[in-house]
Amino acid sequence: MTALLLNCDIGESFGAWTLGLDAEVMPFIDCANVACGFHASDPGTMRRTVALAARHGVRVGAHPAYPDLVGFGRRSMACTPQEVEDLLLYQIGALDGVCRAEGLRVGYVKPHGALYTDMMRDPATLRGVMQAVARYDAGLPLMLMSTRDNGPALALAAEYGLPLLFEAFADRGYDAHGFLLPRSQPGAVHHDSDTVVAQALAFARRTPLRAADGSDLLLDCDTLCVHGDNAASVAAVKRIREALEAEAQP
Amino acid sequence: MTALLLNCDIGESFGAWTLGLDAEVMPFIDCANVACGFHASDPGTMRRTVALAARHGVRVGAHPAYPDLVGFGRRSMACTPQEVEDLLLYQIGALDGVCRAEGLRVGYVKPHGALYTDMMRDPATLRGVMQAVARYDAGLPLMLMSTRDNGPALALAAEYGLPLLFEAFADRGYDAHGFLLPRSQPGAVHHDSDTVVAQALAFARRTPLRAADGSDLLLDCDTLCVHGDNAASVAAVKRIREALEAEAQP
Amino acid sequence: MTALLLNCDIGESFGAWTLGLDAEVMPFIDCANVACGFHASDPGTMRRTVALAARHGVRVGAHPAYPDLVGFGRRSMACTPQEVEDLLLYQIGALDGVCRAEGLRVGYVKPHGALYTDMMRDPATLRGVMQAVARYDAGLPLMLMSTRDNGPALALAAEYGLPLLFEAFADRGYDAHGFLLPRSQPGAVHHDSDTVVAQALAFARRTPLRAADGSDLLLDCDTLCVHGDNAASVAAVKRIREALEAEAQP
Amino acid sequence: MTALLLNCDIGESFGAWTLGLDAEVMPFIDCANVACGFHASDPGTMRRTVALAARHGVRVGAHPAYPDLVGFGRRSMACTPQEVEDLLLYQIGALDGVCRAEGLRVGYVKPHGALYTDMMRDPATLRGVMQAVARYDAGLPLMLMSTRDNGPALALAAEYGLPLLFEAFADRGYDAHGFLLPRSQPGAVHHDSDTVVAQALAFARRTPLRAADGSDLLLDCDTLCVHGDNAASVAAVKRIREALEAEAQP
Repeated sequence: MTALLLNCDIGESFGAWTLGLDAEVMPFIDCANVACGFHASDPGTMRRTVALAARHGVRVGAHPAYPDLVGFGRRSMACTPQEVEDLLLYQIGALDGVCRAEGLRVGYVKPHGALYTDMMRDPATLRGVMQAVARYDAGLPLMLMSTRDNGPALALAAEYGLPLLFEAFADRGYDAHGFLLPRSQPGAVHHDSDTVVAQALAFARRTPLRAADGSDLLLDCDTLCVHGDNAASVAAVKRIREALEAEAQP
Repeated sequence: MTALLLNCDIGESFGAWTLGLDAEVMPFIDCANVACGFHASDPGTMRRTVALAARHGVRVGAHPAYPDLVGFGRRSMACTPQEVEDLLLYQIGALDGVCRAEGLRVGYVKPHGALYTDMMRDPATLRGVMQAVARYDAGLPLMLMSTRDNGPALALAAEYGLPLLFEAFADRGYDAHGFLLPRSQPGAVHHDSDTVVAQALAFARRTPLRAADGSDLLLDCDTLCVHGDNAASVAAVKRIREALEAEAQP
Repeated sequence: MTALLLNCDIGESFGAWTLGLDAEVMPFIDCANVACGFHASDPGTMRRTVALAARHGVRVGAHPAYPDLVGFGRRSMACTPQEVEDLLLYQIGALDGVCRAEGLRVGYVKPHGALYTDMMRDPATLRGVMQAVARYDAGLPLMLMSTRDNGPALALAAEYGLPLLFEAFADRGYDAHGFLLPRSQPGAVHHDSDTVVAQALAFARRTPLRAADGSDLLLDCDTLCVHGDNAASVAAVKRIREALEAEAQP
Repeated sequence: MTALLLNCDIGESFGAWTLGLDAEVMPFIDCANVACGFHASDPGTMRRTVALAARHGVRVGAHPAYPDLVGFGRRSMACTPQEVEDLLLYQIGALDGVCRAEGLRVGYVKPHGALYTDMMRDPATLRGVMQAVARYDAGLPLMLMSTRDNGPALALAAEYGLPLLFEAFADRGYDAHGFLLPRSQPGAVHHDSDTVVAQALAFARRTPLRAADGSDLLLDCDTLCVHGDNAASVAAVKRIREALEAEAQP
């Protein structure tokens, strides 16, 4: 059985505005995807976020995004691969600068929002992302989405000598290709917490899911993406954590 | 005789807007104070600027500023020392991230504009600056202004174990305390290029200047601040460089 | 007895971030100080805020600020009077543009945060503010703080032909000059809701307050500044509204 | 013969950065498309730009854009029609606020860069644009690109009761549908100033152009888009202006 890491978007407050229950969810996660000031956060918020991660021994990942605070990085922007590369170098470096003050270093990179989606769809954008991470530090893992066929991503990463961390979603329905069902579709989001835990355990046990078309779907994954938006999502993270730990007992 | 380094503000373009003759002045300087995106520049401009510095073997310094693109970082902002510290960590890190992609690292830090002025006036702000640089990398020098009495700055830097680089201005008049005359005052700016070169040589030979009140002023300095704004300033840099090199001949 | 208007800062959310209980407090206020995108808000938030004000028949005021989203407009910036004037014209116009789409127009102007404080302290800044409002529309009132001596502000406004709305604070202690006690001082903030209501009624009845030094303080005022930050402040607004209405009965 | 208006992008400086020869080109144009702070410009620059237009009796148009200073508004962003509508209301209003201080008002609206391209491609975006302009002031013309078939745009504008100004390009080659040839294609940009003037006169005389496929192309147009980027483009504007005026003589 694989030990699945739990990763969560963290540090998405901005100036006077608070978002997410960072302090509540931090005890139950392994990896914090920390906003870098382009879709959320600012230098002071980053500092406090990294200090909180340090106190809980949580690994800090850079969560770079398109430059769009008003849109929370959720609106695709027509950036060239070179622009994507430079945006990432800047944001990874900025977070790493803040980490140094708390005795930490950036431990991985996971693009945010529309940049994540664009990277999964468009190989040129993915190349821009990989080039940035490899040039920053060739040993730094890139976290991206596991699909039915991770071969192309692995081949590209091999060119850059880049380690990958594949992530899966315990609370989302999948299509037969291993992509998330659009939220408009029935079954796209699992609202029942038993279903979420069961899907998490399936990933941990490496047993296939049932995709939307009824076919079996086996996804390789290193980490589960969880959420700390509200009390219910934090409770779900706690249940997933407990179920994974129970499973890991001899 | 001391070898005086020439430092120059570089990389102050922004998106579609160009500022400064970076390519023209780069061959004649030792240290490039590179804008970090808060008063000027952006990730792509920073990348091209660092690549240019790399080609000329010029040392890259972080030139962090208050977050004020419209005001070019020239308007003082009421930031706490903690805010100043976090602003610097973010900007130094961001530039260092971009440097890594070009095989370089940030080699020193020189605050920009109103932040520079505030740091020279207000010890609490200076502490915020020093704390940031020391926490980023205790071996990284901070560049600041040489005045008649550098003792307080040296004492503070010793607390943080921070090396300092003192800078002087060949094209500006000084008051008796070793502060620059306000631009509104006669003699504040030397427009004659012979005067500028003579003042540069005085710094190099460690001979005193004549301050505005007629008194002798001896300033310790490691580096001269020069400008690459226009053809005349680049020509002045070239003359200063040649005069310093002639002086250094056995 | 004067009819006191209740004014409240409104529309201070930003993109994905929510701040303030706008929908809850709107039914109890007369004047909404609507953020214009420089310290808070964005075009979409402004649109929804103005629509909410329209539904409740609340007068919309422009709440312009220094350009500082991260600092929520609370950090003073060294802007010239001309810069202040242009900042205000831009922000008043922007809000007025959004108002037009909802069949409203900007009804007054109240500067926000550090700009408000600077305007009350520095006559040159106040001139920049007044010039902007008068040039936008000489009939548009400027809302500012009532102090013991409103004469200088009235004299300046007369130069520009500008109507003024003086505001007072029911929940704050005052010094003998009619300025708010700094928050660090005991008695600066009234936490007891009876005291707040009593002070509101004193303003309405035009009876003097007791200043911090024990002296009587009579403040002319047209409007009370109230808050919609949380449930307790909304409850206080409701109590003030009810007390003022009971008082207004024949 | 129609009197063709000359329109030009103006006021695209930003803070300390200068772009375009505004003062040089202003005497030769009729309509200034003034940047509103989202892709270029800031409140102070807008104020000076509008004052310059006022001195030359040039009509001021709002030139709103996606919020992307670094990309100069040239990168498409996935904004909803509602977001586009609100972005426009904000920017038109902001410029109108600045205009009031100079005794002018916004006289038309022409979207900038990627927003212009998206509006010409996507009817939902065009609806967002039209709704904004109509809600701001139903008498305000929208400037957009003339193509072979302006019927759909006219039909949509009729729904909103919106006047249109169709523009054409004297220095660009067209395809058979009346769209500009992509810059990568031969013949996309006319570098010869005689060709440019001849094409301007063809528009004025309402005689057809030769499209890239050799077919005749007759474009209805009210205005020509000209450029003030550099000395050569200003000289071209002067030649076009003189040719049009000579033509207009009895």
